[in-house]
Amino acid sequence: MSEPARLVGPVEVIGTGLVGTSVALACRRAGLEVLLSDRNDEHVRTASGLGAGRARRPEDRPQLVVVAVPPDALGDTINAALTASDAVVTDVGSIKARPLAQVLADPGAAARAERYVGSHPMAGSELSGPLSATPMLFEGRPWAITPHPGSDVAAVELVEDLVRLAGAVPAWLTPQEHDKAVARISHVPHLVSSLVAGRLAGAPSNHLSLSGQGVRDVTRVAAGDPRLYGQIVAGNAAAVGELLSELRADLDAMIEAIADDAREDLEDLLGRGVTGTRAIPGKHGAPATATVSVFVTVPDHPGELARLLADAVASEVNVEDIRIDHDTSRPTGLVELVVDQRSGERLVVSLESRGWVTHR
Amino acid sequence: MSEPARLVGPVEVIGTGLVGTSVALACRRAGLEVLLSDRNDEHVRTASGLGAGRARRPEDRPQLVVVAVPPDALGDTINAALTASDAVVTDVGSIKARPLAQVLADPGAAARAERYVGSHPMAGSELSGPLSATPMLFEGRPWAITPHPGSDVAAVELVEDLVRLAGAVPAWLTPQEHDKAVARISHVPHLVSSLVAGRLAGAPSNHLSLSGQGVRDVTRVAAGDPRLYGQIVAGNAAAVGELLSELRADLDAMIEAIADDAREDLEDLLGRGVTGTRAIPGKHGAPATATVSVFVTVPDHPGELARLLADAVASEVNVEDIRIDHDTSRPTGLVELVVDQRSGERLVVSLESRGWVTHR
Repeated sequence: MSEPARLVGPVEVIGTGLVGTSVALACRRAGLEVLLSDRNDEHVRTASGLGAGRARRPEDRPQLVVVAVPPDALGDTINAALTASDAVVTDVGSIKARPLAQVLADPGAAARAERYVGSHPMAGSELSGPLSATPMLFEGRPWAITPHPGSDVAAVELVEDLVRLAGAVPAWLTPQEHDKAVARISHVPHLVSSLVAGRLAGAPSNHLSLSGQGVRDVTRVAAGDPRLYGQIVAGNAAAVGELLSELRADLDAMIEAIADDAREDLEDLLGRGVTGTRAIPGKHGAPATATVSVFVTVPDHPGELARLLADAVASEVNVEDIRIDHDTSRPTGLVELVVDQRSGERLVVSLESRGWVTHR
Repeated sequence: MSEPARLVGPVEVIGTGLVGTSVALACRRAGLEVLLSDRNDEHVRTASGLGAGRARRPEDRPQLVVVAVPPDALGDTINAALTASDAVVTDVGSIKARPLAQVLADPGAAARAERYVGSHPMAGSELSGPLSATPMLFEGRPWAITPHPGSDVAAVELVEDLVRLAGAVPAWLTPQEHDKAVARISHVPHLVSSLVAGRLAGAPSNHLSLSGQGVRDVTRVAAGDPRLYGQIVAGNAAAVGELLSELRADLDAMIEAIADDAREDLEDLLGRGVTGTRAIPGKHGAPATATVSVFVTVPDHPGELARLLADAVASEVNVEDIRIDHDTSRPTGLVELVVDQRSGERLVVSLESRGWVTHR
């Protein structure tokens, strides 16, 4: 791929929350002029103060407008942007089909809509607002680009330039396919996580005291803002509803298998889950490779964790993941180093030779 | 608390898988004699080779027997252990009421059952078998002790000694309460995680390529062994079935709210999920404290991660968690350091002064 040359700016960012301000910072990092607007002047000042650009002025003529507003406001904001100038317009919303329908439904939309190409970076955070923004937010992440049949090729290329400039990996999908995909890999996992977490609310504290890492992982995303997720899900109601109904059928089958002690049926359902976990692409888009965990006792002193890491890398083993025990009530902690299966033994020998107590 | 003095051994461990061998190693670490048995002689030899004890001989007279076999085999194995000697017997199974009922149902059980006290360490791993065992497995973890009304006090004390010797934190529950608790904080999260993962099996790969950290977290536990989890769930069918039915009612309400675009109802359901995530006890059993994430760009060279950690701790900030970006397809990675909210600014200033590029 050649370096982006077609995108020269200025880039206007409408909506200076976490994602909008992060896009603006990535454009500034690439040397582009960035124009900021937001219904909330305070957010523009904050983003501007972070070096994300300057407030848009009426006479500005952006080359590309990036709409980064909540799902409910996408259609109107995209339409207003298409009408306000001749710029190419994209958005970074979590849903793609409904905003497009809103754009195409606008009177006299067909010609204007040539300049619209939806997109969606698969990056976010439990945090929100411009203060959480970073130009690194999109680095190495998938960023869906979802042209519609009337999208101008030059407009599509400009959006691709934005994606590459942000360090993201373009994923080409139709708006409809995109919405089905995120229903499955984002919206439904979030909703179901929320249902599991909802069953914890009001549970006796001595029951909750038995909580381990499993329930923490399953429910982490459920901490997200209900208003935002309500908008996202409502904007993808058909695809989400269909998958939730499929999941309910599986849940019914599971409840029945448990009630009837139909062990094989239950194992089949659990086995399909195992297959599903293996379908998620691993690091670098490659199939997940077998890893092994090495546990190391680490005294709870400042510096000990760093010393461990220094010793781990001295053995030239690539540490793929690090997990720090959250549950400990002890003065020593356990650190789990996840490494490629073939490297496990080398890591253990190396760490033990440096005085660490390891456990497999 | 005084040091364990009542538990002097020998301790017999029946079932030398991950948990049994880890119990054995913890007892050995404390200087106790450990006797091992397993239906699989190979496992005994492996565990013995790891220093977990020696094979049990017919003339041995254990003080305490720890039954660490799969759920389906618990009742029979506990009964056999109670009959074989005068030792106190505990088990480390994931379910407590059904094995107890099996013990009490045995002819002439009442007197023998005085010596039985169930227990359940809240520790495990996606790994299994004696080679994954470690005496650290239980360090700082809750370990439920579930005496029945006929349990002898001396027997309960002996099991408490075992829990403390393993570095775990005793949690006192009745067998019935225990089963309800683990249905909520372990079994149902696992089952629902499995249903979400099941919906990924067979999905188009371009859809799956959009997968982020959220779906990975929600589905991680679903990778567990279907046969083992089938036994666990079948052994806790009543409590699990009840909760799954409650969850199905919530799911029905969610499907209806989405179909009707009843936004407030949907937000209420998501809001209850947020409340639930906050109900999970934080580190050290204290309420979760507010944390902030600092992202740091780390070149993908050996040693860079260690250098980052060294610099992070040099700022005397307690790093609560580290997350390494799994999705990157770039030569640089992003490392997320999670620290107490009040320490975030100090960490950023400290790291920047050492040449790191940080992002909030």
